[in-house]
Amino acid sequence: MMVKFDENQILKNGEYIYAQRAEIEKIADAVCEKGFDNILFTSSGGSLAMMQPFDYMISVMSNLNVQSQISAELLVEGNNHLTDKTLVFMASKSGDTKETVAAAKYVKEKGATIVSVLGVDNSPMGELSDYSVVYKDGRPQEYVLYMLIGKLLENKGFFDDYKQFADELKNLPAALVSVGKASEPKARAYAEKYKDDPYQIWIGSGNLWGPTYSFAMCVLEESQWLRTKSVTSPEFFHGTIELVEKGVCVALNMTEGQTRKLDQRVKDFVGQYTDDFTVFDTADYELPGISDKFRWMLSPVVINAVLSRVSKNFEQIRDHSLDIRRYYRKVEY
Amino acid sequence: MMVKFDENQILKNGEYIYAQRAEIEKIADAVCEKGFDNILFTSSGGSLAMMQPFDYMISVMSNLNVQSQISAELLVEGNNHLTDKTLVFMASKSGDTKETVAAAKYVKEKGATIVSVLGVDNSPMGELSDYSVVYKDGRPQEYVLYMLIGKLLENKGFFDDYKQFADELKNLPAALVSVGKASEPKARAYAEKYKDDPYQIWIGSGNLWGPTYSFAMCVLEESQWLRTKSVTSPEFFHGTIELVEKGVCVALNMTEGQTRKLDQRVKDFVGQYTDDFTVFDTADYELPGISDKFRWMLSPVVINAVLSRVSKNFEQIRDHSLDIRRYYRKVEY
Repeated sequence: MMVKFDENQILKNGEYIYAQRAEIEKIADAVCEKGFDNILFTSSGGSLAMMQPFDYMISVMSNLNVQSQISAELLVEGNNHLTDKTLVFMASKSGDTKETVAAAKYVKEKGATIVSVLGVDNSPMGELSDYSVVYKDGRPQEYVLYMLIGKLLENKGFFDDYKQFADELKNLPAALVSVGKASEPKARAYAEKYKDDPYQIWIGSGNLWGPTYSFAMCVLEESQWLRTKSVTSPEFFHGTIELVEKGVCVALNMTEGQTRKLDQRVKDFVGQYTDDFTVFDTADYELPGISDKFRWMLSPVVINAVLSRVSKNFEQIRDHSLDIRRYYRKVEY
Repeated sequence: MMVKFDENQILKNGEYIYAQRAEIEKIADAVCEKGFDNILFTSSGGSLAMMQPFDYMISVMSNLNVQSQISAELLVEGNNHLTDKTLVFMASKSGDTKETVAAAKYVKEKGATIVSVLGVDNSPMGELSDYSVVYKDGRPQEYVLYMLIGKLLENKGFFDDYKQFADELKNLPAALVSVGKASEPKARAYAEKYKDDPYQIWIGSGNLWGPTYSFAMCVLEESQWLRTKSVTSPEFFHGTIELVEKGVCVALNMTEGQTRKLDQRVKDFVGQYTDDFTVFDTADYELPGISDKFRWMLSPVVINAVLSRVSKNFEQIRDHSLDIRRYYRKVEY
């Protein structure tokens, strides 16, 4: 019996987003029709990390100008490429993240177009956006962006197969249910083995960097109070490698994207020096109804389906709710 | 008596680089005369981190198109903005870092112009570069880039005060000696107090992100085998914050750059919740012969002068040479 795994709810949450496909694609059409010179992803913490695979996707699939900038940094550094011809993507689950809202105001003053992906209706972020998609209980959030960014890339001539991709995305929720079930034994074993570990090294690359960074910081640190180091696969070899020895927990998220080779190098190395090494490889999981050629793009949501099993098991085994916080929304800062 | 602090050597190492000012500025003139559409910083580990403040400097001071990409990622992801009109900056102390050399070959095939900052003569990287500056025992490496990037920004109309800046840079080595001496008590106290700490959180932002990331990974992890988490000041509030409690070591590098306000927020918060909190603030140190208006640009080398005192003291107190490695250049990977 899998802890906190409601198959029907996952399917329903997915359907809630896929049902908005036509509206989402209309947003992509509208911003392309208006035209833009460059794209900026800006938000805070897990929300910007959630969009990292889409900055990556645009970068590898097109020659569009794209940047990501943390909202708090945008506010103090400015951005000399931000103009009224900039298309800005923002995300916020609460719709009222302090720095993200301030960045939306800043961006709006420059005349840029804001498209936001939000968890709630009637939020400050919604007010400030030119277009927004509200996912409520819908999941995963990335589902919105696959259609938004995918359609945009198709419109710009960089994603000829988009229609097939979007049609197959209908199968994504069921595929993620299947990933959740298939990954449960490995996820549970990981959570059992490392439940009291003082420190975990998490490694990932390319379109799994955002998910890896975010899982370490926004799940293990923020909601389990476990200490982590997250590092990219190539950068691991430039320092963190020296920490590896027997007894040090190392986890690798392997992508099916362009940087898989860099993950493989980590896998080949670490396995030789410690038994406390776990590889979560998206290639291990079947995605019924999804063509092989689209799998690399979906590695982020596949790994998140796996990692979600790790966090749900940590929550139960450690008897530490994913919802308790020492500081967030408890004290002012 | 400061451990491993040779004032005359620091001055000599600085002079060695400043003596090359004319040649360095000629390189900036040559690449500007040839013209370029965009700038790419690419290298690996500490070398790319060393250049991060210069990507930052170009971004805040100009509207030139600039990107940074880890060399290993460039090789597998490609870069759709890389053309024969791209100006590429690379750095390597050994001049033969595997991924960096491969990236130089890749970039050269695209017809881009390579300017490299290298630690040795007659290296593979030197062979592949259109222009290179060899610093040998010269230090800090950033010294080269202040002149290279500063002159380039002046040529492009973004740094009117460059001549004054470069003239004052003559005083940099002596200023860094003064920073080293002034920071010794704090650095030594930090090294004493945290010599056996199982885990240190290091925080920084803006033009101190590179130095912070690099000190944590390439010094504490790589050469002291101490576990770290490095995180930017704004992102700290989106997860890592929850780890803060009495007994957890937290260190903050404060810049005088545009993001100082973000560091201040961390300072105001963390001080309330733990006594194991150390702030290394570049504003605490006099820089004789350097005008106030240039100080923000120099925060990276000032913080490195401070952190170098931390590492030298760790080395002595922990009786752990900064040069020993478990894996680097000992085993194949």
